[in-house]
Amino acid sequence: MGSNGQEHANGFHDGFHASGTAGKVITCKAAVVWGPEEPFVMEEVQVEPPQKMEVRLKILFTSICHTDLSAWKGLNEMQRVYPRILGHEAAGVVESVGEGVEDLKEGDHVVPIFNGECGECPHCRSHMTNLCARFRVDPFKSVMAGDGQPRFSVLDPATGKRRPVYHFLNTSTFAEFTVLDSACVVKINPAAPLQKMCLFSCGISTGVGAAWNCANVKEGSTVAIFGLGAVGLAVAEGARLRGASQIIGVDINSEKFGKGREMGITKFINPNDCDKPAHEVIREMTKGGADYSFECAGNLDVFREAFMSTHDGWGLTVILGIHPTPRLLPLHPMELFDGRRIVASVFGDFKGKSQLSDFVDKYMNGETKINLDGFITHEMPFTEINQAFQLLSEGKSLRCLLHL
Amino acid sequence: MGSNGQEHANGFHDGFHASGTAGKVITCKAAVVWGPEEPFVMEEVQVEPPQKMEVRLKILFTSICHTDLSAWKGLNEMQRVYPRILGHEAAGVVESVGEGVEDLKEGDHVVPIFNGECGECPHCRSHMTNLCARFRVDPFKSVMAGDGQPRFSVLDPATGKRRPVYHFLNTSTFAEFTVLDSACVVKINPAAPLQKMCLFSCGISTGVGAAWNCANVKEGSTVAIFGLGAVGLAVAEGARLRGASQIIGVDINSEKFGKGREMGITKFINPNDCDKPAHEVIREMTKGGADYSFECAGNLDVFREAFMSTHDGWGLTVILGIHPTPRLLPLHPMELFDGRRIVASVFGDFKGKSQLSDFVDKYMNGETKINLDGFITHEMPFTEINQAFQLLSEGKSLRCLLHL
Repeated sequence: MGSNGQEHANGFHDGFHASGTAGKVITCKAAVVWGPEEPFVMEEVQVEPPQKMEVRLKILFTSICHTDLSAWKGLNEMQRVYPRILGHEAAGVVESVGEGVEDLKEGDHVVPIFNGECGECPHCRSHMTNLCARFRVDPFKSVMAGDGQPRFSVLDPATGKRRPVYHFLNTSTFAEFTVLDSACVVKINPAAPLQKMCLFSCGISTGVGAAWNCANVKEGSTVAIFGLGAVGLAVAEGARLRGASQIIGVDINSEKFGKGREMGITKFINPNDCDKPAHEVIREMTKGGADYSFECAGNLDVFREAFMSTHDGWGLTVILGIHPTPRLLPLHPMELFDGRRIVASVFGDFKGKSQLSDFVDKYMNGETKINLDGFITHEMPFTEINQAFQLLSEGKSLRCLLHL
Repeated sequence: MGSNGQEHANGFHDGFHASGTAGKVITCKAAVVWGPEEPFVMEEVQVEPPQKMEVRLKILFTSICHTDLSAWKGLNEMQRVYPRILGHEAAGVVESVGEGVEDLKEGDHVVPIFNGECGECPHCRSHMTNLCARFRVDPFKSVMAGDGQPRFSVLDPATGKRRPVYHFLNTSTFAEFTVLDSACVVKINPAAPLQKMCLFSCGISTGVGAAWNCANVKEGSTVAIFGLGAVGLAVAEGARLRGASQIIGVDINSEKFGKGREMGITKFINPNDCDKPAHEVIREMTKGGADYSFECAGNLDVFREAFMSTHDGWGLTVILGIHPTPRLLPLHPMELFDGRRIVASVFGDFKGKSQLSDFVDKYMNGETKINLDGFITHEMPFTEINQAFQLLSEGKSLRCLLHL
């Protein structure tokens, strides 16, 4: 019997048999992190059935994003909740749904979204924001919204008792099975290849959406991107598809420039190779400054360069990087009077449940020609997750796809 | 002979006879400031004729704005240029025009604009900004753009020689005659009462424009205004005319609330009378936060309250106050991820030469019912300028109109 009295089902060994596991606790493998920067441990965890308005997914592919890396490092004290299952960029199939879930059913192909959409709160009913009042991204949340409890547990060898394992970013995808609020699950075209759809779950949507929905990059405009990880390159894809005339990539790792060129970046700046600040180089390149700059590095000095690199009068800097520093914005209020603007974007301003499946469809029918393959630089089995983290941490991978 | 060899004309004693003074140096009265916070001295100054693309105005009415007060105090070291003629909110008549000026002629009724519009630079040609590349507001500029020289001079009693008197904010309206670049002079409807038109020169346009052009306040929305001086009240007028459902005024001087009520403010908060921060009170009043907040106090602690008072997801804070502090913005970058935005607005985002006369016409034909009279709380002769500064400094006047 499971911790809540339900029957057990061994999902891990049996594979995916929806009808056999619904309503039962599933025992499966998950990569559990027990402390800051401690290696992931492949644990046998128990995953409870989805409660009201929840969904249990079988994760087939997951990849790693810098937000996972930052949480793994435990840079922010409030994020140090252990044991925990990280991961938020993934694709999978619905295993079962809880009471009241009507838009999803067993077998649906889905991607999880860390920034949910309940569809009913004032925020969801407003066209001005994609920050759901209940299920928006929250790096400090570690339990389900419904009852304040986690759905995972693991046997503690020290005590011989089961102990809770905490959730991360509404998703916890480093597990063969995971439970999400239905507000955080998007049904997509079943013909779409799930291993690539993984990228729509975070990186691609965040970057392309930042260029499209947040900045609304115009044809012929100039764009500067600071930090050429997956999100930065997805911004480049978005800007390229919008017909930007110049897309300038800035990174202190010149090894990223080859990939950047594939993604449509037209000029590169390695600040370490310049005798003046990057923003001055960009102002010269663009005759006054970029129309848009994107901060994808999570570094305030980089943010300042991004801000200063835009054109006075109308330049817009979009913040995408996560800033774990206690430092405040390095900006004087009067600097805003030069007409440069700043905005931060979450999940590319996409309303996930309403808009993401359409975005996927446009990729599938060729209307939106995103170079998804270019983003997947490595693939390996789920069990190699520690190696995958190492690659991302060293800037050697864009996205390493883990097969579950 | 004047300092540049032209004939003299005593404009002050003769009154305004355009045909008699064009091309000649005019000797007239001006309120000159000789050092930080030193009383204004009524000096006889010489005003040279307008050079190429310049215009000489006879100022008939001028009022005092907090930007004058801030410059008078010399809070920013770079602004300490003396002797100087301050003043930028005024109305008058064209006395003569320099070579190449085609849109203005002797006798035109005009208002000066401290934030000019050349009409030709990339900024002026863009619909996205009102910050002209050449004549935008610049508190550090003290000479004419054409030749880098001032057009004013005064006799230095210590040396018996004439010495230059410096300009301020493209305008220097605390003088009976002043020289401006034609980019900084707007011709208005000659039927408009010049004593009220003075307010369009800065305060009214800045506040109403911030609500209309910058924030684009929507019908039924909620607005919080921090600092109930003339600009703050003009924001209230703008918001009222747009049909805002709640307009909340915040000031530590409750004596301003009566005037605020006249201007359409519906609720008042004196932070000194509250047992919690103003932003919490506003969030309660508006069920989550104001759609827009306006910082009209020039104080960073007030800015933070204004920022926090807006609704997450879409709240916009417009900075209008001048911040002479060296302090940086008290904001953490991650706070922007809650979807609150910040922008600064200059001259209400109006393009002065293109749009101001239309704004005046709409006031004249009754389409825009602004309560201009309510802003003019005091009137006195130009010679009483020191008393007028005192009133503003003590928060006792909104606008004191000086008659020249």
